[in-house]
Amino acid sequence: MNKLILAVLACAALPAVADEGMWTYNNFPADKVAAKYHFKPDQAWLDKVRLGSARLAQGCSASFVSPDGLVLTNHHCAHSCIEQLSTKTKDFVKDGFVAKALADEKKCPELEVNQLTDITDVTKRVQGAVAGKSGAAFAEAQKAEFAKITKECATSDDVRCDVVTLYAGGAYNLYKYKRYQDVRLAFAPEFAIAFFGGDPDNFMFPRYDLDMALVRVYDGGKPLQTTSYLPVAKTGAKAGDLAFVSGHPGKTSRNATVAELSFIRDVEQPARLLRLAELRGRLTEFANRGKEQKRISNAILFYVENGYKARSGYWNALRDPAFFQSKVAEQDKLVASVKDPGKKTALQQSIAAIAAAQKTKTDLYVPYLQLEGMQAFMSDLFPLARGLVRAADELPLPNEKRLKGYTDAELPGLKQMLESPAPIYPELEEATLAFGLTKFREQLGPDHKTVKAVLGKKSPETLARELSKSKLRDVKERKKLFDGGKKAIEASTDPMIVLARAVDAEARALRKRWEDEVESVTNKESETIAKARFDAFGTSVYPDATFTLRLTYGAVEGWKEAGADVSPITTIGGAFERHTGEDPFALPASWLKSKDKLTLTKGMNFVTTDDIIGGNSGSPVINQKGEVIGLIFDGNIHSLGGDYGFNPANNRAVAVHTDAILEALEKIYGAKHLADELTGAKKPTG
Amino acid sequence: MNKLILAVLACAALPAVADEGMWTYNNFPADKVAAKYHFKPDQAWLDKVRLGSARLAQGCSASFVSPDGLVLTNHHCAHSCIEQLSTKTKDFVKDGFVAKALADEKKCPELEVNQLTDITDVTKRVQGAVAGKSGAAFAEAQKAEFAKITKECATSDDVRCDVVTLYAGGAYNLYKYKRYQDVRLAFAPEFAIAFFGGDPDNFMFPRYDLDMALVRVYDGGKPLQTTSYLPVAKTGAKAGDLAFVSGHPGKTSRNATVAELSFIRDVEQPARLLRLAELRGRLTEFANRGKEQKRISNAILFYVENGYKARSGYWNALRDPAFFQSKVAEQDKLVASVKDPGKKTALQQSIAAIAAAQKTKTDLYVPYLQLEGMQAFMSDLFPLARGLVRAADELPLPNEKRLKGYTDAELPGLKQMLESPAPIYPELEEATLAFGLTKFREQLGPDHKTVKAVLGKKSPETLARELSKSKLRDVKERKKLFDGGKKAIEASTDPMIVLARAVDAEARALRKRWEDEVESVTNKESETIAKARFDAFGTSVYPDATFTLRLTYGAVEGWKEAGADVSPITTIGGAFERHTGEDPFALPASWLKSKDKLTLTKGMNFVTTDDIIGGNSGSPVINQKGEVIGLIFDGNIHSLGGDYGFNPANNRAVAVHTDAILEALEKIYGAKHLADELTGAKKPTG
Repeated sequence: MNKLILAVLACAALPAVADEGMWTYNNFPADKVAAKYHFKPDQAWLDKVRLGSARLAQGCSASFVSPDGLVLTNHHCAHSCIEQLSTKTKDFVKDGFVAKALADEKKCPELEVNQLTDITDVTKRVQGAVAGKSGAAFAEAQKAEFAKITKECATSDDVRCDVVTLYAGGAYNLYKYKRYQDVRLAFAPEFAIAFFGGDPDNFMFPRYDLDMALVRVYDGGKPLQTTSYLPVAKTGAKAGDLAFVSGHPGKTSRNATVAELSFIRDVEQPARLLRLAELRGRLTEFANRGKEQKRISNAILFYVENGYKARSGYWNALRDPAFFQSKVAEQDKLVASVKDPGKKTALQQSIAAIAAAQKTKTDLYVPYLQLEGMQAFMSDLFPLARGLVRAADELPLPNEKRLKGYTDAELPGLKQMLESPAPIYPELEEATLAFGLTKFREQLGPDHKTVKAVLGKKSPETLARELSKSKLRDVKERKKLFDGGKKAIEASTDPMIVLARAVDAEARALRKRWEDEVESVTNKESETIAKARFDAFGTSVYPDATFTLRLTYGAVEGWKEAGADVSPITTIGGAFERHTGEDPFALPASWLKSKDKLTLTKGMNFVTTDDIIGGNSGSPVINQKGEVIGLIFDGNIHSLGGDYGFNPANNRAVAVHTDAILEALEKIYGAKHLADELTGAKKPTG
Repeated sequence: MNKLILAVLACAALPAVADEGMWTYNNFPADKVAAKYHFKPDQAWLDKVRLGSARLAQGCSASFVSPDGLVLTNHHCAHSCIEQLSTKTKDFVKDGFVAKALADEKKCPELEVNQLTDITDVTKRVQGAVAGKSGAAFAEAQKAEFAKITKECATSDDVRCDVVTLYAGGAYNLYKYKRYQDVRLAFAPEFAIAFFGGDPDNFMFPRYDLDMALVRVYDGGKPLQTTSYLPVAKTGAKAGDLAFVSGHPGKTSRNATVAELSFIRDVEQPARLLRLAELRGRLTEFANRGKEQKRISNAILFYVENGYKARSGYWNALRDPAFFQSKVAEQDKLVASVKDPGKKTALQQSIAAIAAAQKTKTDLYVPYLQLEGMQAFMSDLFPLARGLVRAADELPLPNEKRLKGYTDAELPGLKQMLESPAPIYPELEEATLAFGLTKFREQLGPDHKTVKAVLGKKSPETLARELSKSKLRDVKERKKLFDGGKKAIEASTDPMIVLARAVDAEARALRKRWEDEVESVTNKESETIAKARFDAFGTSVYPDATFTLRLTYGAVEGWKEAGADVSPITTIGGAFERHTGEDPFALPASWLKSKDKLTLTKGMNFVTTDDIIGGNSGSPVINQKGEVIGLIFDGNIHSLGGDYGFNPANNRAVAVHTDAILEALEKIYGAKHLADELTGAKKPTG
């Protein structure tokens, strides 16, 4: 879900300027908005927008758009679900999907929708629990306290609770969500228009994508009845409009130290990019095997290409010497701002300790990602095997002693994965496993003890073929193993279970070193740095993104590209002009057929100055009245790099215009009933 | 041909220490060898070794090993030929090839063997021609003078002449070769043993590869009769032996400025690696389409994987901050060594001018490689089309006005390419063209004018399919177009010719800018730097590699790896221990069957301290008696990075032991006649 990434040049450690900032709902700078845009959101407005916002647990944003639980998000956020519902003979990715009535809506095997109901400050509690601790003890104590807090909060399976580390440990907040796991697909257009322009146009603008999907949340088997929703405006965005975006930016590193940024630039991004490039080559050719292979690999190829382009952008930002130097200067400035000699020394020591941890991180990086990160066993089957093997070990432990992912509060997510009827395709499994195992041998070397233990005398291809025949494809088999606990796991001869068992000790050992020597050092020392930043700026700054709900503000506004103005809004007619008839510039037949019925001057896509990043995909763009006027689905090319800073001059969020959404539903897809539900004109029919 | 790359830490701008140095034959430090190894090669010895050395024009080294024109080189150097001689039903790459008698030897469609007969100093002539010129005028004058010199020298088609720029323009030498284009395959083992261990073991040691092939040079339809050859020793290399290597290192950048190294580190290697990674993914999956597809893509996949691993090594060397800093210090030291203020200023200005040219190079890099470098049109067909289109334009021009590649002296190479009966596979063409065109659109953008002109409304896949149907596969068609000249080219509707015509003006324009603004600036300013280096060191240093014949010296010697000794010689028995039965660790059936007959304690591969790099593949390792005791085929992992400097502690050349060659020929392949010819025991039979 890296689709949305925003690039930046200014410094995030200093108070935000321009429209910069991914603000938490309990620290929104309403006065700043008022000063610039003459509209001050009050608490009622903020509450309404917060409750109308939704998160897709798999990594996207969304919004409730009707009193009957209809949720608007991106096609690319629902892509997995759409593919999972498809079959060899009925391909909803290619052909789109329209539920004519409630009864036609199809349950997504793995989608989970979260609605943020409460934010509680638990800073004192967490900081108290870890006070005076470091290394493994720090990690252990923090994990235990998190597990305790979330267990107290998550009183039933439909409540999800996360302790969120904000300001790099400057604050800890408990986020409480209503969790919905019965989510059904109501509408998706054809992939060809959802991702019109494909990889070449990705992160570009002007743009012409109907990257939307409608799903509906069900509660007790019936459409959710709610007053917390944001209706779609009858008329969408206009140039100059004030535009809020409420969504879940995934991760930013704007407050990272120079050593952490060096690690990202010199180790992480090159390694990830080279892997993605090779995988992209494999998947592109895999799709050439035939129509069915193209269908089953469509989603993963999309994620790989999107990730590749996004990471190229991150990397290029950090490789720009002037930009990198600005991050060095920013850190120096922070140190210089601390006058108290003791505090200054503490800050410098923390910066040095994080730098030392990056060296360890570099040493551990490859084996950690291969074994604990599961790169070696790239597949849908291996995570199931690992989940089962670890559940058998972890669930008998006291809640606060368990690994992350296996606490009581997290069990519904684990169960959803294990019980998912989503299809798993052996041919694709075999291909990705062969790739993963080949890279595993390449990166650790054929004489590495774990490589030898895993491969034995087999080639990666031979082992991949065997593993792809695992019975874990069958939900019943997984259930049996889950219910059978440790004994069943130990007795299993399923090749995936055997593999997961064989590498688990080493994977856990790497994880422990990673947590104790890298993460907990970074977390602990980042607190010192965060405190120094707090002393200087307080909450006049926003915390780095954490895949929790944030509100940004901005305007519908173009930018200057090589001296020329880029207009902020494209039209439906523009899509027809860009049509060549060949993928990815081929409009679907439904559009070509309907051209005469459409108002071609209506808005198709637009850009805003909002500060967003990957995870914001599916976020509503909201006007002052709390109506949805657009649907975020991308950032422009300049936005790549926003992981590290924000440049208001040319960093733009890219959204689907709601006029195009209403026009297409009504005139192309015969879904006037959905258009009417979005605008509040009509209720859904059973 | 990047197989052989040597890595380095010391500084090449300072006089060579240890066994460092790729010495020209007219400046070999015989006294240094004598001082260290108590053997001083005299002129007769040097002449004998020089004339016994051979170059494969396509990018490898070799040696004449019998009075009847037998030539020893690597399997990977003859790989293309072996594949070109194979068919769907007879796969010599997989099964190997043994000519039982001369009549069975098969002509390689494209191999050209060169023997260096003379070296003449033409420094004054070239420097005189370019004196006082810069930019385009410098490039033009140099090109004209080169063409004049080589035309005077190349009095017939079987003479090849190249003006070689040594010491970055400090000296120009005319290298005159005897050119042999009738080269026939006599022996090749199975790919499985030639490249045993495959990509995982590539650049590694201990190693167990029989990476050898024997070809025979024919002259007037008969085996070449010659006294200039190096016999194979009856007993091969032993630990501690003095070992010379005579071969053609392709390119080193040890004297490059810091700005040039930065370009390689920051622009060239990342771009090349990402492309190779993706191409590797595509080709790996292409081979999965079926047995025949695996066969026809075997050679290109090998080159791609080899290039990927080699470039990773180069890149990692430059990304090591300590090493890079040593190159900065080296340059600073050179500047400091110049005492004359005028000369110092000139040196600094030259360094600055080269740095400025790197900026231009960065801007031009992508379009230049795509269009002039033919990355966009990756195939075997496009270079033929370009050759035809350009020949039609260039050949009517006066010799000294023509593009490089089209002068009279170079015509035999062009004709060999156009007349080659080597098979071209439409399915593989389509796949590589689709890749090339996709990256072309990705890197220049779908709205770039040339991308639009080339693709029109077509997708890369559609256009690739059309182009792969070009009639240029047919030698007769090529001949018709070549003979028909400009008129025939203009009238052609062959899709490849149409494409080559369409992009030629822009490709030439990019080439002109590249030559005038990058290459000629670098060449000219490098002369100033070279002069400063000459003032300091004279010819006590060796010039950077230029794919011309060099002689190195060293010893058969292991190294310390993580504190443990790596023994310098592996045995035939070791190959059987490493055998798993699965590719790439599966010995061929011929070996398994013959195990009992083999002396398992005999040498298989070994390492030496010789300073070699890519292009040295196929070089003979020679003892004091002028006998061949080994066959260079690789460098160890530490050797990667030798592009920039030499580290005697662990940089090792890797060779096939001649004992293994003789043992295998006689006892595995039933080719005692060839073993006997190599040792001089017997003449070949018709």
